[in-house]
Amino acid sequence: MERDKVDTEISAYLETLGRQAQAAKVVLQGLDTAQKNRGLERAAEMLLLEKEKLLSANEKDYARAKENGMAEGLLDRLRLTDARIEAMAEGLVQIARLTDPVGEVMETFDRPNGLHIEKVRVPMGVIGIIYEARPNVTADAFGLCFKTGNAVILKGGKDAFYSNQAITAVIREALKEEGIDDNAIQLIENNDRAVTTAFMKLKEYVDVLIPRGGAGLIRSVVENSTVPVIETGTGNCHIYIDEAADLSKAVPIVINAKTQRIGVCNACESLLVHEKVAEKILPALGKALLEKQVEIRGDETVRAQIPEARAADETDYGTEYLDLILSVKTVGSLEEAIAHINRYNTGHSDAILTEDQVHAQKFLREVDSACVYVNASTRFTDGFEFGFGAEIGISTQKLHARGPMGLKELTSYKYQITGDGQVRP
Amino acid sequence: MERDKVDTEISAYLETLGRQAQAAKVVLQGLDTAQKNRGLERAAEMLLLEKEKLLSANEKDYARAKENGMAEGLLDRLRLTDARIEAMAEGLVQIARLTDPVGEVMETFDRPNGLHIEKVRVPMGVIGIIYEARPNVTADAFGLCFKTGNAVILKGGKDAFYSNQAITAVIREALKEEGIDDNAIQLIENNDRAVTTAFMKLKEYVDVLIPRGGAGLIRSVVENSTVPVIETGTGNCHIYIDEAADLSKAVPIVINAKTQRIGVCNACESLLVHEKVAEKILPALGKALLEKQVEIRGDETVRAQIPEARAADETDYGTEYLDLILSVKTVGSLEEAIAHINRYNTGHSDAILTEDQVHAQKFLREVDSACVYVNASTRFTDGFEFGFGAEIGISTQKLHARGPMGLKELTSYKYQITGDGQVRP
Repeated sequence: MERDKVDTEISAYLETLGRQAQAAKVVLQGLDTAQKNRGLERAAEMLLLEKEKLLSANEKDYARAKENGMAEGLLDRLRLTDARIEAMAEGLVQIARLTDPVGEVMETFDRPNGLHIEKVRVPMGVIGIIYEARPNVTADAFGLCFKTGNAVILKGGKDAFYSNQAITAVIREALKEEGIDDNAIQLIENNDRAVTTAFMKLKEYVDVLIPRGGAGLIRSVVENSTVPVIETGTGNCHIYIDEAADLSKAVPIVINAKTQRIGVCNACESLLVHEKVAEKILPALGKALLEKQVEIRGDETVRAQIPEARAADETDYGTEYLDLILSVKTVGSLEEAIAHINRYNTGHSDAILTEDQVHAQKFLREVDSACVYVNASTRFTDGFEFGFGAEIGISTQKLHARGPMGLKELTSYKYQITGDGQVRP
Repeated sequence: MERDKVDTEISAYLETLGRQAQAAKVVLQGLDTAQKNRGLERAAEMLLLEKEKLLSANEKDYARAKENGMAEGLLDRLRLTDARIEAMAEGLVQIARLTDPVGEVMETFDRPNGLHIEKVRVPMGVIGIIYEARPNVTADAFGLCFKTGNAVILKGGKDAFYSNQAITAVIREALKEEGIDDNAIQLIENNDRAVTTAFMKLKEYVDVLIPRGGAGLIRSVVENSTVPVIETGTGNCHIYIDEAADLSKAVPIVINAKTQRIGVCNACESLLVHEKVAEKILPALGKALLEKQVEIRGDETVRAQIPEARAADETDYGTEYLDLILSVKTVGSLEEAIAHINRYNTGHSDAILTEDQVHAQKFLREVDSACVYVNASTRFTDGFEFGFGAEIGISTQKLHARGPMGLKELTSYKYQITGDGQVRP
């Protein structure tokens, strides 16, 4: 009974947000690029002006999270500092400088009956973002959605609630000052767990839902959402050292992909080595990895070459460690490497190290991932590294967008057809 | 207990199909355009050769459906004839003649660090299609998926089961003769209702699910699927007769959009008329509609001009009749027309009749539909009419594809990145 009442209130609350977003969507579609850029710049200014307010809201979150025993890495992500607020503001200014994809005429075709058809790039409409306790995502997601003419509804992690609330309030104030509907950004301020699930079913008002976070969050969104979802960010990324690899490239690339940053989705989690080069490469590689404190989990051949390695099991090959751990396996052929990768990867990023062009082409073609590399670190799968100037996430699905998603990936298109009385015979 | 056993069997069955499709996917990705075209042509030949087998399988379905009291319109869709089998075969030949989109290099960019990035068009992988009792969809969906290098798993309506089974068997035989993995097309042959729901959750093996059918089927897929879905085909399409309309165009366009074919998603279901031209246009329009046996449901102004019209209520404005019924409403302004359409439409196709360019542009921009028309019938929303040469359905969502979907819309892309030892600093 009590629960029913709560659920009814949640529905009403979300519908209000949905309706407001739909109204804002229409306003945003009517803004030109200059107006949107002014909104972004004003929001950036205000974030800097209101720094103290943001820091003190964040302090509340941080103190509570610490008290609740949040892990060090998560606490670090939650923390706002002067420098991080400046980076947040700078991010919005950068987005203002990017080319506006909306309005682009992508194709035109004239039909024999005289109909003129234009395929025009348009905003998605209303975008929902569900994320964890990282307050910078609040400003970032707003910036990308706003630049592309989309209204955004945010559901952030409850541990960052006060920070998100403060950031959202500042941005809304900035929009108001620019005479723009401040419902362009709305934060879901009810932290009841049922709200998140109900949000995933707000199909009438939300055009696409993008979860940003760990595998658990993403799974939950995929399972519960009736709104179309773009899956992002789980990366069980592989590097395969081919028999024709230039071994002098192997150590630096593997060390970079595994250790340059460990908690990210484009970090290498699993290494395959052709058995013909295992003896030559594994000792040096093992030494370099161990120096970086990487725990190695390998098969028998690997353990023969790297005595410090532990035994790997099937679970290891399917695990995105996000930690200083690497599974290592020897394979008998390129085909075996490709089959293993296609079995265990998450469709994110995989690399081959080889000087053989035929092997390289086969790997590029047959590995079923968003980003497939030859002789480079998987860490380059990133909107900025790709030159997109921004990134809302890295899609691991094949529908709509794959790999790093920039501004274009936050748009849809429509067909505008002009005639002079045509009817279908 | 018994149910549990059935569910376990269903899971095992679907997983087998999924694994087979995944294996076929790899083979299909390796085929060149000529090989795919030969497969299509051979399948077309075999459908003609095995006409008798198809007709007798269809006869079984038809007799059973008739006995079960299936409605006349549905019986007609279920029926196979010589001509329809020839059309099915011809459809495959046509698809063979279309340009193969797979392998297209969509973009290339060279990064300052020397990385060369190519965005390449690739097959989706495995496509699932859920449809109703229309056997022609079986060959058609196979043709489009096969040409784009995708393996397809089909779940057809149980009323067309024997027909689908026969068509699938013939196509599989043709592929085998061409030395191509016949699991490129698989039909789900278990008609337990639970199979369809389980199929919607076969995320590990299916990359995208496309429901083709009525609103109920599509709703069920959207609600239950964990596989990414492309929603297709519900069309509550509007025509708005503006105050600046050329009234001589209005009657032919409305009659065409409403009556040229009534059971289709791009038929007009609702008409809006600016109050300033209501008196001028409604009597003639009413007469023409009534001559075509169209039942008119209108507001007071409409009923004053067309005495035969019944009163419309809110439900009418939200209904896709797929029948000889049209709701008609007068509006006081273009803005009111746009707001009404955006409230009640299904994001499919909507048209304005006007000679005023400013009104036309506003309508094109602000109506949130896949296809927005000026001075033409909504019936043109169709892959063939757009010149795509084929159509798998009409998307009413904004993610991935919108409007008529041809071959390109059955593809995804991947990034292929080539370096010479780059690591991320």
